[in-house]
Amino acid sequence: MAKELKIVGKRQPKIDGWERVSGKAKYASDIYLPGMLYGKILRSPHPHAKVVNIDVEKAKALPGVKAILTYKDISAFSWYQAPFRFNTDMPILTDLARFTGDDIAAVAAVDEDRAEEALDLIKVDYHPLPFVLDPEEALKPEAPKIHSQGNIIGGKPFILERGNLEKGFQEADLVYEGRYYTPMLQHVTAEPRVCVAHWDRGKLTVWDSLQYTFGLQAGLAHIFKIPMSKVRVICDFMGGGFGDKVAPERYNVLASILSMKTGHPVRIEFSREENFLATHHRYPTICYLKYGAKKDGTLTAIQAKVIADMGAYCHLDGAFGIMETMKGVYRCPNLKGESYNVYTNKPEGGFMRCVGHPQGQFAQEVHMDIMAEKLGLDPMNFRLKNYARLEDGDQDRKIPFSSNGMEECIRKAAEAFGWGQKWQKPGTSPGPQKRGLGMAIHSCRHGAMSPPSTGMVRINSDGTVNVFTGAADIGGGQKSAMAMIAAEELGIPLETVSVTSADTEVTLDTGGTWGSRQTFSGGTGIKLAAADAKRQLFEIAAKELNTGTENLEVKSGGIYPLGSDKGIPITEVLRKAPATITGRGTGSLPQGVITHCFAAHFVEVEVDTLSGKVRVIRLVAAHDVGKAINLMATENQIEGGAIQGMGFGLTEDQIFDQATGICVNPNLVDYKVFTMKDIPEIQPLIIEPIDPYGPFGAKGVGEPPYSAPAPAIANAIYNAIGVRFTELPINIRSILEGRNKGSKA
Amino acid sequence: MAKELKIVGKRQPKIDGWERVSGKAKYASDIYLPGMLYGKILRSPHPHAKVVNIDVEKAKALPGVKAILTYKDISAFSWYQAPFRFNTDMPILTDLARFTGDDIAAVAAVDEDRAEEALDLIKVDYHPLPFVLDPEEALKPEAPKIHSQGNIIGGKPFILERGNLEKGFQEADLVYEGRYYTPMLQHVTAEPRVCVAHWDRGKLTVWDSLQYTFGLQAGLAHIFKIPMSKVRVICDFMGGGFGDKVAPERYNVLASILSMKTGHPVRIEFSREENFLATHHRYPTICYLKYGAKKDGTLTAIQAKVIADMGAYCHLDGAFGIMETMKGVYRCPNLKGESYNVYTNKPEGGFMRCVGHPQGQFAQEVHMDIMAEKLGLDPMNFRLKNYARLEDGDQDRKIPFSSNGMEECIRKAAEAFGWGQKWQKPGTSPGPQKRGLGMAIHSCRHGAMSPPSTGMVRINSDGTVNVFTGAADIGGGQKSAMAMIAAEELGIPLETVSVTSADTEVTLDTGGTWGSRQTFSGGTGIKLAAADAKRQLFEIAAKELNTGTENLEVKSGGIYPLGSDKGIPITEVLRKAPATITGRGTGSLPQGVITHCFAAHFVEVEVDTLSGKVRVIRLVAAHDVGKAINLMATENQIEGGAIQGMGFGLTEDQIFDQATGICVNPNLVDYKVFTMKDIPEIQPLIIEPIDPYGPFGAKGVGEPPYSAPAPAIANAIYNAIGVRFTELPINIRSILEGRNKGSKA
Repeated sequence: MAKELKIVGKRQPKIDGWERVSGKAKYASDIYLPGMLYGKILRSPHPHAKVVNIDVEKAKALPGVKAILTYKDISAFSWYQAPFRFNTDMPILTDLARFTGDDIAAVAAVDEDRAEEALDLIKVDYHPLPFVLDPEEALKPEAPKIHSQGNIIGGKPFILERGNLEKGFQEADLVYEGRYYTPMLQHVTAEPRVCVAHWDRGKLTVWDSLQYTFGLQAGLAHIFKIPMSKVRVICDFMGGGFGDKVAPERYNVLASILSMKTGHPVRIEFSREENFLATHHRYPTICYLKYGAKKDGTLTAIQAKVIADMGAYCHLDGAFGIMETMKGVYRCPNLKGESYNVYTNKPEGGFMRCVGHPQGQFAQEVHMDIMAEKLGLDPMNFRLKNYARLEDGDQDRKIPFSSNGMEECIRKAAEAFGWGQKWQKPGTSPGPQKRGLGMAIHSCRHGAMSPPSTGMVRINSDGTVNVFTGAADIGGGQKSAMAMIAAEELGIPLETVSVTSADTEVTLDTGGTWGSRQTFSGGTGIKLAAADAKRQLFEIAAKELNTGTENLEVKSGGIYPLGSDKGIPITEVLRKAPATITGRGTGSLPQGVITHCFAAHFVEVEVDTLSGKVRVIRLVAAHDVGKAINLMATENQIEGGAIQGMGFGLTEDQIFDQATGICVNPNLVDYKVFTMKDIPEIQPLIIEPIDPYGPFGAKGVGEPPYSAPAPAIANAIYNAIGVRFTELPINIRSILEGRNKGSKA
Repeated sequence: MAKELKIVGKRQPKIDGWERVSGKAKYASDIYLPGMLYGKILRSPHPHAKVVNIDVEKAKALPGVKAILTYKDISAFSWYQAPFRFNTDMPILTDLARFTGDDIAAVAAVDEDRAEEALDLIKVDYHPLPFVLDPEEALKPEAPKIHSQGNIIGGKPFILERGNLEKGFQEADLVYEGRYYTPMLQHVTAEPRVCVAHWDRGKLTVWDSLQYTFGLQAGLAHIFKIPMSKVRVICDFMGGGFGDKVAPERYNVLASILSMKTGHPVRIEFSREENFLATHHRYPTICYLKYGAKKDGTLTAIQAKVIADMGAYCHLDGAFGIMETMKGVYRCPNLKGESYNVYTNKPEGGFMRCVGHPQGQFAQEVHMDIMAEKLGLDPMNFRLKNYARLEDGDQDRKIPFSSNGMEECIRKAAEAFGWGQKWQKPGTSPGPQKRGLGMAIHSCRHGAMSPPSTGMVRINSDGTVNVFTGAADIGGGQKSAMAMIAAEELGIPLETVSVTSADTEVTLDTGGTWGSRQTFSGGTGIKLAAADAKRQLFEIAAKELNTGTENLEVKSGGIYPLGSDKGIPITEVLRKAPATITGRGTGSLPQGVITHCFAAHFVEVEVDTLSGKVRVIRLVAAHDVGKAINLMATENQIEGGAIQGMGFGLTEDQIFDQATGICVNPNLVDYKVFTMKDIPEIQPLIIEPIDPYGPFGAKGVGEPPYSAPAPAIANAIYNAIGVRFTELPINIRSILEGRNKGSKA
């Protein structure tokens, strides 16, 4: 690792940046094919209702309508049991609507207006049923059953135990209990869900805005019982994923069936409203925490009951995603966790940036902040006392971390922020515009290696390189990272590298672009592939230079014996190769360690106690990324994640009318994301402990920046005005209500 | 090789047949991009003229015209010195027209009409120069010089000598001399030359109807001085090549420059007329042959002087292509060959199906037929006496053939034809409709292995397979052959295989689809890649089954110990693989042998001596193909080649007006190709000596079927009417003139 890096670690504008900003990039939403039809989905207006009758005759008779599907037409297709899908309770089209927006029918027509009109002409008689929106209500025996097996998914909570909880509480000098709530959120990707499916005589091609094209390929092959070699899924450019686009979903399947039935390509593109009503969501959560600590701050017991409101269908084990934060951020020998995944008559809970961790961390980091104050400790020192060390790792399975930069994150961020100098007693800020400081830490398993980890590198006869990665570039700069890794490993200029990604026909499955895993997982595949290609070059060059392959290096377009200036140009080596040199790489899961990413955020806020407006003044975000492959992209990820995380803390909240079960703010006017005017100065700090297993020491960074801002802000607001908020978002109404509460306190 | 073949050798409809016949296949001519401009080329109206002045101002002023190029604009681009290009004497645009149709200027405009109009508005002042059309005239000292170095390309003829020619003639009982002529031909591909070039900020994508996408990729990267990784050339479907589309050519470069200058995609599509005027051609040839033989038929001396009329620019060593037939079809210890490549003011001579061999074989096989008669030998026996045996191979370098099915070709074809029973003395057919029999043999180096030979095979998680080959499928069924080879080697059903071909971005260079080389060269790469993938499967399965990899076989979707019915499904093996299994293959040139293909054609004709019409009644075509991979495609190739070869014999002739140098029949009304109504019963006979080096024993077959029909027909016409024709085509006029000559004789 002593070798000087020439490309990795630099600030590199995205290699496909020009395509992106010039509008030349082809996103799935830019795909228009000859003869293409427009698909639209009819959605339930009721949160819970039986379809008694459905009459499509009038719609069918409308000129330009080419196909109509209802639940009766999809019985031949069984849903795909993807390994990463927790539960398969979702029919492709349903005759029992379980949320407002549930998929009842689909049409394909020659244009969008005709398709909309056809939807209007489908007559559905619904028998409305009682519904439930609150997960704690849904747990009660008298609640309406949303699925036949009851509202607790899996029938019972998952229990996690470590050590002796009772003993832990007995050892504690302080035991503190709290309840925390986080709301439903939408990803608000720049590009809503969209796909174009083209079924052409048993071969199915799908352009999709998708984090995992290979997953959709496998899913569609399974659903349609055709070979995977006859399914091609393409995602070249993508306008954001954030976990909403992990495939396969109903709309992909519906577009494919409609294409099969009509013989035309079919496009289904969600409106912004549909993205709110009928995609995945960050699931609302309720956490009951009871922690015990000694006077010196040592945590002795963690007890957590987590309720994840997974909506009408369950995409993943959301509750355990939350529990991971209680289980792993701090060292604690005694723990009991109880995780409930609960059905409600709301849209499906799914993956969203850092999945359950932001919800869990909001609860835990506010909880810890309260305990620090009660113990009379500086909140930073309380965390430094308890954070899980390198050797702690997985405390249940007793596996250490592969690397751990938590302490450096906390100390460097505190120093950059001026924590020591600025610290004030909570509630002491004078005047109506009150300033306050807060901090939170974060650690999670995102950013680690997980198989499959593959890559392929081809060296053209002029010495330039094509890189093939199955990783979708969802906007995070995955193409650039892969190019930089390949160029660095091969010792060639970055400008000579071209990247092909995520096209299932021509790249290799290296897993989904989620879990911040592609830098580590896809990147390892590419690094090994480049090394394999270099080895082949060296084998030829070694013969020519009468030396061993171990004595060679690449520099200035040639291969040289180490320390010598007499080498041979790569192009000449290539002329002696029997064929185009192609390198393959397959990474494997590091054994005996687990990999986590670590972070510490420090934030200063100003609370206008008159208007209720909270302004974030400054955010210092230190992240252990192992090693930044592209420094610019790493900083961008930290900034982007932190911005979303601030929205989670202060503004975002998808709201349902309690009387009707209808979402009242499915649009970007009423659902408030953080915008440019809200964004404070963000100072990313890159902490590089060099992970021994990552490519050039790198770990991922996409998700962790989301998790720390909300609790740090909540803690800073408390520091400013002396009012504790345990429910998100802390919006203007919260502040105005809390101000009263605070002044009363 | 004892193992029973399940897929190879069967009659398999093309795997992409449906796309082809349904019109869904995307040929380069089907590519229309948003904002695309139409490029057109201004062509010289003179066969030889200096451009004195060129005024583009009026054309520039025409609304919709986006760019104009003349020779002044292309000085920055140097022509690509492709290794397979014999001479680089062709400027991209010229100020000295060397043939009628030479490229003077190019325009890009918003539509075709506007582009045509712009061409009309370009004012060129030409200073006409003396020109020469006849290659023997061009050799004279007083002839106009077409290039500064003179009209003999390379300055002198190439001399090939073997043994002692004088001694050979001294040993001969018969010495016979003759002169033979073949005309200029056009390929008449279904799809004329066409490309769409899209220059997008340093990345160049070209869709082209092309036999060798990697050659164009390398050429364009070189010309534009950009990395090969930034040049993508795509040819998915192609409407025939026959040697005209071997890249890079002027039109590719012009489209690319026009795209670079305008920032738009630019399409250049040749009209049928342009394909006649300004592409490659089968070059006219004149052969002077003087052969000696003993009474018993043994050849003792071969002397040949070959003049190849290469037109205004020289694409390849055409004369040596002809000489190969004199040098190799027959065993003869004493030989002298003299090969002249000559410039004339006609379109460029280039590759065309079997290149020089049809011209050479017409001369040689008529010559041999005459000698057989003079020696009183059956023409078939005379060939059986002299054909080059397995051990003869390359008689100059003393390297044996890898396999040799010539004798079997001759004997099986003669038997199927009924040669012995049907044979008649020449000129004895009664009445005005005279029937006659003729035969010819052929052998050439086409169909052999030549590097690069690569392939890649990916096994999806459901056990289905994607095959990647750099070989362009030019209509010969290359995709199907690669799929069959992979499926056979892997032991899986053909229906589960999908093929990606000839896209330089995602496949590996396996050389051009020419020289009938892809079944052997590309096929070997795929076979080795499939074997590599199978090896990886077996390594996992062997562990599971507690046996050695050598004891395993694939059957019924599983891997089994040999002879056992207890195996494991491939999908289960794949689940245990660390990542997608990908196989690579690189073939190498067999050492110590040369590979030839062999053929014998027997033909019966009916000559209507009143109308001059020749009707081919029946053609039996026996071909040594080593082993037919796809029996149906092999038969198709034999039929297609023979049909073209019959056109060469009887109808095709691109004619130039001697006074003006202008082509008088650049269209399919006046240039007569063989059509459905002309085609006789063709009986292909597949001779399979199993080549020890070919994949499953295969050699190629694309080109040889073209070479034998013309001389066999000429010989049959002689047998029918007693008139020898030594010039092609033997059209109605020839017959009518010859009938008089014949009756006079």
